[in-house]
Amino acid sequence: MKPQRFALTPGEPAGIGPDLCLLLAAQSQPHPLIAITSCDLLTERAAQLGVAVSLIPVTPAAWPDVPAPAGSLYVWDTPVQASVIAGQLDKANGSFVLETLTRAGQGCMDGHFAGMITAPVHKGVINDSGIAFSGHTEFLAELTHTEQVVMMLATGDLRVALVTTHLPLRDVADAITADRLERVTRILHADLVNKFGIARPRILVCGLNPHAGENGHLGREEIDIIEPTLARLRSEGLDLYGPLPADTLFTPKYLEHCDAVLAMYHDQGLPVLKYKGFGAAVNITLGLPIIRTSVDHGTALDLAGTGKIDTGSLRVALETAYQMAETHS
Amino acid sequence: MKPQRFALTPGEPAGIGPDLCLLLAAQSQPHPLIAITSCDLLTERAAQLGVAVSLIPVTPAAWPDVPAPAGSLYVWDTPVQASVIAGQLDKANGSFVLETLTRAGQGCMDGHFAGMITAPVHKGVINDSGIAFSGHTEFLAELTHTEQVVMMLATGDLRVALVTTHLPLRDVADAITADRLERVTRILHADLVNKFGIARPRILVCGLNPHAGENGHLGREEIDIIEPTLARLRSEGLDLYGPLPADTLFTPKYLEHCDAVLAMYHDQGLPVLKYKGFGAAVNITLGLPIIRTSVDHGTALDLAGTGKIDTGSLRVALETAYQMAETHS
Repeated sequence: MKPQRFALTPGEPAGIGPDLCLLLAAQSQPHPLIAITSCDLLTERAAQLGVAVSLIPVTPAAWPDVPAPAGSLYVWDTPVQASVIAGQLDKANGSFVLETLTRAGQGCMDGHFAGMITAPVHKGVINDSGIAFSGHTEFLAELTHTEQVVMMLATGDLRVALVTTHLPLRDVADAITADRLERVTRILHADLVNKFGIARPRILVCGLNPHAGENGHLGREEIDIIEPTLARLRSEGLDLYGPLPADTLFTPKYLEHCDAVLAMYHDQGLPVLKYKGFGAAVNITLGLPIIRTSVDHGTALDLAGTGKIDTGSLRVALETAYQMAETHS
Repeated sequence: MKPQRFALTPGEPAGIGPDLCLLLAAQSQPHPLIAITSCDLLTERAAQLGVAVSLIPVTPAAWPDVPAPAGSLYVWDTPVQASVIAGQLDKANGSFVLETLTRAGQGCMDGHFAGMITAPVHKGVINDSGIAFSGHTEFLAELTHTEQVVMMLATGDLRVALVTTHLPLRDVADAITADRLERVTRILHADLVNKFGIARPRILVCGLNPHAGENGHLGREEIDIIEPTLARLRSEGLDLYGPLPADTLFTPKYLEHCDAVLAMYHDQGLPVLKYKGFGAAVNITLGLPIIRTSVDHGTALDLAGTGKIDTGSLRVALETAYQMAETHS
């Protein structure tokens, strides 16, 4: 098997992303892992944290084929526009953040990287810098010319994918169309097969309404949209179970026999996932032609430079990307 | 302390309610507990289950003052209209089910019982019998002339109350009014004080939208309705925290310092609660002038008469009612 390199983007430079990369470097990785950020930033943050990490600059002209030893970190040096103070957002670095994502994403497209792992960005400061930006996921969809992506979070043996994501609650019901549900379900199924190596994934599907509509008494979307769509996809051989009430679906009887849960909206699926997996959950973007995983937490500006952070979610994001790449290769 | 009697309604006679009462009778209770149902039904179901329970008929003319011994069950005989076959709904018994609830609820109002504990009813068959019925909670609200009740589920140290309950998802956003939120929050606060003995309850409040609206980018209900309402109630001394994103609220950092979570709608709050407390959760109706707790599961018609059931949720419902009555007395 040829060596597989992975890209790690620390995201917002004033947040805990650089700290996570530095703390992670204490142990070696099973694959060459390349942080795409500024060497100067990492040097300064390492001094602030009081950790000794040997930075090893690398470039596309000479990628490493073996993992960096413990205590060291490969860095594809990408200069910041303005020097960084931990905890203080600076819109001058908005374009820097996007450059690291472009290098990682394009590097995946061009075969330099087997996958990319992202630490959190700060959407607000990027927009304040004059660049319209609605998130990693949308940015990578555009970069890779992907029409529909699917957000999935995972922890341990629980995977939860979403039909809709960052919508006001009052817009959710109208966004649950047969077309969207079908596209999302197909992507979830295909990626469980191709990127997770599950030959015939079993997917549990939530209803939209409480009690999955209770036979139409509490809403008709299950009858009018969800059930017919699932029936059509089942006829093609997809193993779909539901629509089920969300508050009975997340119990052992159902979860023991499923590979992923498909929730209709953000707060139907993610509270359980994060309750179960706090500090050890990974966010995976399905539907992209590349492998991308992410931590499940924010920039935590108040903790940058303090060392009081947990690398648990980043470790899960790395392991998940490695496993997906192995399955996919 | 004078003896406190409690009423237990087995609910749908063809479901597992009668079975739960019979299995429960193997151990004695700390208080006199009176099942309000048909002696004939219990006798037949006991034979079907192969359990020996001594039924002790009681009436309001001579209530017991001591708990029934292990292996026996007090019964306020309430005849069924048609003989019952386990697992087979019969609309002839719709009025019977309501009679058991009336006896229990009115008995609480009249001081015969310190509280009532309910096993599941089947809404559909009661409506099929020609009686409009939308649930225990609404029935008891009407019986006790209560305008606003609040549904709360609890398991272990987690309590989740709901601002809206059994509404189609598309109607939820419009139902979150300042008036409703204020009434529900006041009831939750008052009952945590009066029925749970918490001097100054700390309540965590969910936002309505994902990420609690993200400063208005994902919906404005937090800014326009929830925050002003919470601010007004805080000025009266209520300890309210939020609105918080539902997928970060249900993590240890927040839950460790709270007495109850107030979720805006059914599937935002209950999946986590039931995930945590499967088989050991209790449903509590707040705002009533009486104490009422319930199991958190359905009639399980397919399991009636089989003995393959778990009394865990009923035990938690009983213990919760006992504790509430002790606090309240």
